[in-house]
Amino acid sequence: MCKDYGDDPYKAYQAELVEAGLLIPLGVRGLYGRSGLFEHIIDQFEHYVTRMGAHLNPEVMRFPPLFSRSHYEQIDHINNFPDLMGSVHTFLGKDKEHQELLRIFNQKEDWSRGLAASEVMMVPAACYPLYPTAKGTLPAGGRVVDLKTFVFRHEPSDDPARMQIFRQREYVRLGTPDEALSHRNYWLERGKMMLESVGLPVEAVVANDPFFGRGGKVMKATQIEQVLKYELVVPICSTEKPTAISSCNYHLDHFGAAFGIRTADGEVAHTACIGFGLERITLALLKTHGFKVDAWPKSVRDILDLR
Amino acid sequence: MCKDYGDDPYKAYQAELVEAGLLIPLGVRGLYGRSGLFEHIIDQFEHYVTRMGAHLNPEVMRFPPLFSRSHYEQIDHINNFPDLMGSVHTFLGKDKEHQELLRIFNQKEDWSRGLAASEVMMVPAACYPLYPTAKGTLPAGGRVVDLKTFVFRHEPSDDPARMQIFRQREYVRLGTPDEALSHRNYWLERGKMMLESVGLPVEAVVANDPFFGRGGKVMKATQIEQVLKYELVVPICSTEKPTAISSCNYHLDHFGAAFGIRTADGEVAHTACIGFGLERITLALLKTHGFKVDAWPKSVRDILDLR
Repeated sequence: MCKDYGDDPYKAYQAELVEAGLLIPLGVRGLYGRSGLFEHIIDQFEHYVTRMGAHLNPEVMRFPPLFSRSHYEQIDHINNFPDLMGSVHTFLGKDKEHQELLRIFNQKEDWSRGLAASEVMMVPAACYPLYPTAKGTLPAGGRVVDLKTFVFRHEPSDDPARMQIFRQREYVRLGTPDEALSHRNYWLERGKMMLESVGLPVEAVVANDPFFGRGGKVMKATQIEQVLKYELVVPICSTEKPTAISSCNYHLDHFGAAFGIRTADGEVAHTACIGFGLERITLALLKTHGFKVDAWPKSVRDILDLR
Repeated sequence: MCKDYGDDPYKAYQAELVEAGLLIPLGVRGLYGRSGLFEHIIDQFEHYVTRMGAHLNPEVMRFPPLFSRSHYEQIDHINNFPDLMGSVHTFLGKDKEHQELLRIFNQKEDWSRGLAASEVMMVPAACYPLYPTAKGTLPAGGRVVDLKTFVFRHEPSDDPARMQIFRQREYVRLGTPDEALSHRNYWLERGKMMLESVGLPVEAVVANDPFFGRGGKVMKATQIEQVLKYELVVPICSTEKPTAISSCNYHLDHFGAAFGIRTADGEVAHTACIGFGLERITLALLKTHGFKVDAWPKSVRDILDLR
C-alpha cells in the first residue's frame, strides 16, 4: 500500500502527504499545518457526526486546548501518562529576572529553567475539561454533550497518524451506570457503521493504553480485564498494526467521583464517551481512497457531501 | 452599557455571558468553554471573512496551537513579550524519576520542577508558524495565505475579551514592500467596512503593544512612530477603553530576514497581515446586539446568514 521509502511505511506516507501539500511540516516530529483540503475533509466528516448525533439533542460545548492545572491534578494522568503531558510554563519575573533570562538565552543555554508553571495544562483528551464544569447534581436522565477539542500528547513520531496535537470530536454521556454503559455500547456500533459507510473497514478491539512504568502494568491488565475501552482500528500504513481512529470508553465513576458529579438520585455519576480522531480519520480516508477527492467512491462523497 | 456589578463592567459582562451559558468558566481567569451558539456566531463570521477574501485566491492553511521552540527563538518574542509566552514542558524521566515526581506531587509541592522543556511553544500570533515554512524564494507576485490558529497569551483577566487562548483568522501577504504595505492598507479599509456592516462602529487607531520592561519603551515609541500596526477598536465593556477586535500589521522585513524568505527578485521579503480576533468580535456582537440572535438587526443576520 505505501510506496517504498526504505523500510518505513510511516515515513513514506508522511512524505506523500507533505509532497501533496496536505500536511505542512513545522520542524518538529508530529507537528504539522493542515491544508485547506485536509480541513475540508475534517469539516465534512464533522457534519456527518453532527447529523448522526442530532437525535440525542446534545449540548454543544467547545473547549480550548488548555485546562486548569488543579483539575489536571485530580485525574491520575500524572500517574499513568506523565510522559505524554504538556505543562504550560511562562515568565513571571520582573525586569531584573528578564535580563538574566536573556543572558542565558543569548548564551544558548537552557533558558526554560527561568520559567515557572502557569495555571494551565494542555488538554490530554477532549472530555477532561468537561467534568469539573459538571460538578453537582445532573438533571434526571443525565446529560449528553457534544465536544471538540485540540488534545496534546508528547510522543514525537514520524507516523503522520501520531501527531503531538490533534482534534477529537466526542459525544459524552453523564448519568447512571446503565446510561453510561448503554451510550458506550450504542456508539461502538454506530461509530463502526459510520466509519464503514465511508469505506473504512474498522474492527473493534479492546484497547491497551500505554500506561507508564512499573505501575502501568497493573493498569493495563485492569483496563483489558474490565473491557472499559474499545478502539475502532483500520490499517493506515500497516496492516499488522492498524491505527485506532475512534475509541469508545466507559469510565465507571472515575470522573464522577473525582469532580463530585451526582445523578438526580444522589448516586455518584458514571460517564462514557465516543471519541472520533479527526486527523486520523482524514488520514485513513486519504490513504484508502487516494488524494484526489473527486475520484473517491460516489457513496462516500455523497455521505460526506464532498464535491 | 454593562449592568451594575460593583464598579467592574468587565466582571459584569463576564457574569452575564456565564449566566446565559455562552461562556463556561474553567476555573482559571481568562479560560472558558464556548457554547454552541457562541461557536455558531464565530463560524458564520468566518464564512463572511472567507467570502470577502475569495477574490484573492488565498492558500488555506490551518496551524495547531503549537509551534517549534527553535522558531520561537528567532522572533524576538522572548525580548518583547516574555510575560505572555507559553512554553510546553513535559516529563522526560524513567521510572525512578517518576517515583520522585509523584512523591513531590503527593506532598503537594511544586512538581513542575521535575519537568523539562519540550520542542514546542504555544503560538503567540496566528501567522508566526507560517514564516518558517515559507523559507526560500517566493513565486513572482508573492503569496496570500488564509490562516486560523488558536493563540496563547498569559494574561489572566476578568475581562471576557481578554482570554488566555483564543482564535485569530488572518490574511497574510508575503512579497515586496509595496505588496505587503498595500495588503495592510487594503485590509485596514476592508476590515473596517466588514465590521461596520455587522453593526460594530470600529475606529482605526495606531496600536500600542504592551512591550515588556525597560527595553519595551523604545519598542513602543518605534512602533508608533513607524505606524506599523493599526487596531480596529470598538467599545465592549468600556467606551473609554475600547477593545481591539482586529489588527492590521506591516512587519517590514522582520520575518523575511529571520526565516530567509526572498522575493522572486532576490530581495528580502516583506510581510503584512490582517487578523480578526474571532472571540472578541463575537463578544462585541453579543454586547452590541444582545444575546438573542434572532432579535439582531436583519441586515446583520443577513450578512452573517444567522437564522
